[in-house]
Amino acid sequence: MILGVDPGTMIAGYGIISVKGGTMSMIQYGVVQLSKYTTYQLKLQKLYETILRLIDEYHPDEMAIEDPFFGKNVQAMLKLGRAQGVVMAAALSRNIPIVEYAPRRIKQSVTGNGNASKDQVSQMVGHLLKEDLDPKFFDATDALAIAVCHHFHENALPVAPGKKNKKGAWGAFVSENSDRIL
Amino acid sequence: MILGVDPGTMIAGYGIISVKGGTMSMIQYGVVQLSKYTTYQLKLQKLYETILRLIDEYHPDEMAIEDPFFGKNVQAMLKLGRAQGVVMAAALSRNIPIVEYAPRRIKQSVTGNGNASKDQVSQMVGHLLKEDLDPKFFDATDALAIAVCHHFHENALPVAPGKKNKKGAWGAFVSENSDRIL
Repeated sequence: MILGVDPGTMIAGYGIISVKGGTMSMIQYGVVQLSKYTTYQLKLQKLYETILRLIDEYHPDEMAIEDPFFGKNVQAMLKLGRAQGVVMAAALSRNIPIVEYAPRRIKQSVTGNGNASKDQVSQMVGHLLKEDLDPKFFDATDALAIAVCHHFHENALPVAPGKKNKKGAWGAFVSENSDRIL
Repeated sequence: MILGVDPGTMIAGYGIISVKGGTMSMIQYGVVQLSKYTTYQLKLQKLYETILRLIDEYHPDEMAIEDPFFGKNVQAMLKLGRAQGVVMAAALSRNIPIVEYAPRRIKQSVTGNGNASKDQVSQMVGHLLKEDLDPKFFDATDALAIAVCHHFHENALPVAPGKKNKKGAWGAFVSENSDRIL
């Protein structure tokens, strides 16, 4: 079971997938609406409690989060760092390993295109998980995409020493699942 | 009881003071050396566990942390945000309120000078707590200073409506404790 989290300061998305016999399925996805809480402490507390509740309910083996861009201003980065910190603390308190993926890598893994739109990511995630996902529920579908990305990377084909696997996890997946690609 | 924390990514300081009958005393102060841990996850886990252990051992009523400068680069701010996030998560998981003070305000509260050196802060904190503090243990004495600053602010004299308390908590303290000032 993989918990994907897209931590934000106004809204945070989460998605849980299970993997059995190489087949992924969606367990839960959703968002925590943080903008309605008046203080940043309440926002962080709500985020921490939500992630901890999900962990204690589903016992994921790993948590995957998005490693953010560095283009924002320092104050925004501090706030984002705090949101990531409380999400990470929830995982660390239960000894759950955390993995991080850059946004481009997530899009590349899931759609084959590092510049894919949120719409394309959402569609592809729904297709891969065989779920009729809310197409505009981007914070939640992004979180599912992070979990799916992690599954692909965990299951990348072994590469002979000295030889780069040019196909990558996505390429390997496409080769083996050509009927499932949009 | 007040827990002061100076969260950092390489080293984090903490200091606990108790206040009885208006008199402050030092309960514990120290640092968590995080630079020796090889991954940032181990750093964050160690920081989280240390703060949680202190909270569960001493049951502080409040946690005070330093609100950082915004002069650093975005990557440094993200890392600092994460460190703050795990420290905050430890407090939030025990429903302990968090207060933040800017560095200048902490120095002003403790020494009367917003531009005081770390040496001056350390000396004054030792004097106020009647403790012979290690004069070069700045990460820990800074954390004690944050706790002391919070105590002064909590106990600021009530101000008549429409009238600014120009003396502030420090001024009030100086007036009442002129014999204790260096």
